[in-house]
Amino acid sequence: MNTLAQTTSTILDIRQRQVPPALMDRMKTRFSDQFSTALAIREHHGRDESSFAAPPPAAVLFAESTQDVIDVVRMASEFSVPLIPFGVGTSLEGHVLAVQGGICIDVSRMNRVLAINAEDLTVTVEPGVTRKQLNDAVKSTGLFFPIDPGADATLGGMSATRASGTNAVRYGTMRENVLALKVVSASGDVLSTGTRARKSSAGYDLTRLMVGSEGTLGIITEVTVRLYPLPEAISAAICSFPSIEAAVRSTIQIIQLGIPIARVELIDANTVRMVNAHAKLSLREEPLLLMEFHGSPTGVKEQAELVQEIASEHRSNAFEWATTPEERTRLWTARHNAYFSAVQSRPGCRAISTDTCVPISRLADCLLESVAEADASGIPYFLVGHVGDGNFHFGYLIDPAIPEERASAEELNHSLVARALRLGGTCTGEHGVGIHKMDFLVTEAGTPAMEMMRTIKRALDPKNIMNPGKVFTL
Amino acid sequence: MNTLAQTTSTILDIRQRQVPPALMDRMKTRFSDQFSTALAIREHHGRDESSFAAPPPAAVLFAESTQDVIDVVRMASEFSVPLIPFGVGTSLEGHVLAVQGGICIDVSRMNRVLAINAEDLTVTVEPGVTRKQLNDAVKSTGLFFPIDPGADATLGGMSATRASGTNAVRYGTMRENVLALKVVSASGDVLSTGTRARKSSAGYDLTRLMVGSEGTLGIITEVTVRLYPLPEAISAAICSFPSIEAAVRSTIQIIQLGIPIARVELIDANTVRMVNAHAKLSLREEPLLLMEFHGSPTGVKEQAELVQEIASEHRSNAFEWATTPEERTRLWTARHNAYFSAVQSRPGCRAISTDTCVPISRLADCLLESVAEADASGIPYFLVGHVGDGNFHFGYLIDPAIPEERASAEELNHSLVARALRLGGTCTGEHGVGIHKMDFLVTEAGTPAMEMMRTIKRALDPKNIMNPGKVFTL
Repeated sequence: MNTLAQTTSTILDIRQRQVPPALMDRMKTRFSDQFSTALAIREHHGRDESSFAAPPPAAVLFAESTQDVIDVVRMASEFSVPLIPFGVGTSLEGHVLAVQGGICIDVSRMNRVLAINAEDLTVTVEPGVTRKQLNDAVKSTGLFFPIDPGADATLGGMSATRASGTNAVRYGTMRENVLALKVVSASGDVLSTGTRARKSSAGYDLTRLMVGSEGTLGIITEVTVRLYPLPEAISAAICSFPSIEAAVRSTIQIIQLGIPIARVELIDANTVRMVNAHAKLSLREEPLLLMEFHGSPTGVKEQAELVQEIASEHRSNAFEWATTPEERTRLWTARHNAYFSAVQSRPGCRAISTDTCVPISRLADCLLESVAEADASGIPYFLVGHVGDGNFHFGYLIDPAIPEERASAEELNHSLVARALRLGGTCTGEHGVGIHKMDFLVTEAGTPAMEMMRTIKRALDPKNIMNPGKVFTL
Repeated sequence: MNTLAQTTSTILDIRQRQVPPALMDRMKTRFSDQFSTALAIREHHGRDESSFAAPPPAAVLFAESTQDVIDVVRMASEFSVPLIPFGVGTSLEGHVLAVQGGICIDVSRMNRVLAINAEDLTVTVEPGVTRKQLNDAVKSTGLFFPIDPGADATLGGMSATRASGTNAVRYGTMRENVLALKVVSASGDVLSTGTRARKSSAGYDLTRLMVGSEGTLGIITEVTVRLYPLPEAISAAICSFPSIEAAVRSTIQIIQLGIPIARVELIDANTVRMVNAHAKLSLREEPLLLMEFHGSPTGVKEQAELVQEIASEHRSNAFEWATTPEERTRLWTARHNAYFSAVQSRPGCRAISTDTCVPISRLADCLLESVAEADASGIPYFLVGHVGDGNFHFGYLIDPAIPEERASAEELNHSLVARALRLGGTCTGEHGVGIHKMDFLVTEAGTPAMEMMRTIKRALDPKNIMNPGKVFTL
């Protein structure tokens, strides 16, 4: 298996499907200013945070309503032209690249909060609403939306990639938190999947089929998610360890004991250095766990004491507490900026991100072997992890002008994924497959499961117009 | 919409597909003693806990391995003969009835616990393992499996119907707790869906597509679920209220405040009477909440104090505590036996169960109007509810010999479902659709979503051999 070669060929093997002038004309007539073929606009919509490149889409449609989406889908279907949904472009896996050409549907103007049902702990939003916007909108209700992938992604994009992030260890991922969707299918029909009830056994779980389908089965135009009461008490702590192993073994024990920790994030010493430099902080440059505890004041105290005990058994230093909201925001902003801090540490570089997730007992093995391999390669990298879920990210910082660096990084990635799969894990905990992990997915899922996915795709999108060339090739 | 007429016609409109003698011969040759055409065996496998009747399957195959399932699927596919998976027959909605004839695949002999991964909080079992068997098997690890639908159902059946029950308010449903499945598809291929990692964004969520598909997309031959550390402290309490409304309004407040209660179950006064008579108990014959609190000793105390405060604001009586495991078992056994207690209260009767689930703020409205309607009808009934989830069950106790009683009960059910849907809820919180709720599902999901479900079914099971005539008709 040579992932590098396969991945490269996948990207190069793009069949640019033409957008017929007749369709362009109809789009211009129907959408006027909402429709753009300006190169700058197209180029902005033809890339994401990944290190991949493809020609930009032929045009960009700024959708403002479900009806707009229906209309563009029907037109595109008539001409068998690919459609690529776009939120704010924070994908790390090439999800929004126009690998087969076509039209980008930018939903960022569909950013209304449609219904806050505080008494039911639910909210319904348009897909262009970002997670920060959502939390601002519900702040006055005493509720919050916990899913936090770091980037200020849209709810549509987070649903499409089954995103999660730092709070997932306690609150679950988009899989657990999306209650219902409105979706425009490949034929231009509008479906409602799910209701606002907390649970249901009513037929096939179309909500969960759409969550994580990366725009390949339909375009999401409304998202209903669960909200949670803001905890009475929140405390965050930083704890440094003599080694990554000590930090990881502490985490494993925290999870195995069922301590309901809300966040437990690993940053390795080198990444702490990058974060310090970027954010002008003075975090101890050792492997750190960044933790957060939610609950009643007593509950938070109790959790923290248990975790401190576990950590000190692994020779940690004392906890440093961030108790005020400002201190906490500073801490999590630093964590979220690890990616940008790292990229800035090597001017002109691109990050190739990994996203393996393994059963918690295998985390130390998987992580430590991968660290040794990355160190031996000489490629600079950052390392952060939602370790409570068994999920971590290397970001190999390559010079895109040096093909050998990309080759080495992809080899490291390949080796890491193979290790994670051997240990019962997955190639992607939260980023999705996009164009980058298609070969990994085949290895992970196996032929019969891939065949089932392809059968579903062919049945629901017979003209292959919904974000074609992502997740798998047909 | 006349559900009664439609439901009846659905059941009567059964097209009994023939099982050709050539297939019967091949099954006998391949499976010998595992294959039975004895009438008593067939009749036992042709009914469940629902009030519906259909001719029994033509034969029963006692599968003992995934390979057995593969072989029977391939043979049945060749002859286009329906296959109906069967665990222990606790369905309430006619899931296992052979409405189109065919062969029943009894998986109860596939009851091995395959792998307890205590350090990862996961366990993998064959589909015939029941929830009690599973909890016995993992007891020594200090872990437990929380999903508890009352009946000692199999993990295969619970997965197929997306079951939940009393603990779902805290631990989620099968939707949240199944990590991975092994499934035999309609073509006789074996798929693995998911891994043991806690989260994944690797392709379409085939696990969740199978969970709740009621045997119509494939036959589950292995189930991997999450386990949880047994709480350090558990306390259970009974609290009686002056009215159902007071009990329900207390529950709503508990949920809205985010108190992590593990169980909060409603039983109405009349059902308490039935339970007392059946289980020789002396519970106060008033609307009750049965509650359970999980956590640290301090956490449990804190939760209980908060809940007591809320309840007393709604003029409850004092909590009665069940603190020893024996007392708790007695309490929950009484709750689980409500169904049998009720059925025994009217000799010869059958229960027609409802299963609506609504957003929590609508629970009082939905429940109280439905109680008034049921009282006015004169049909005896029981009423229990997983009220923390907004889910409750009426069981109308009809004399099956009196068609007017069935008609009245179905009218009540219909009116209740219409109300729940109006309030943003679902026709089935946990029982599934089976043959009983097919019309309700159409109303709830709407035509485009139904069309998507049918398209998936047709693509994955082109010969319609997987439990045909359930969830929807093609």
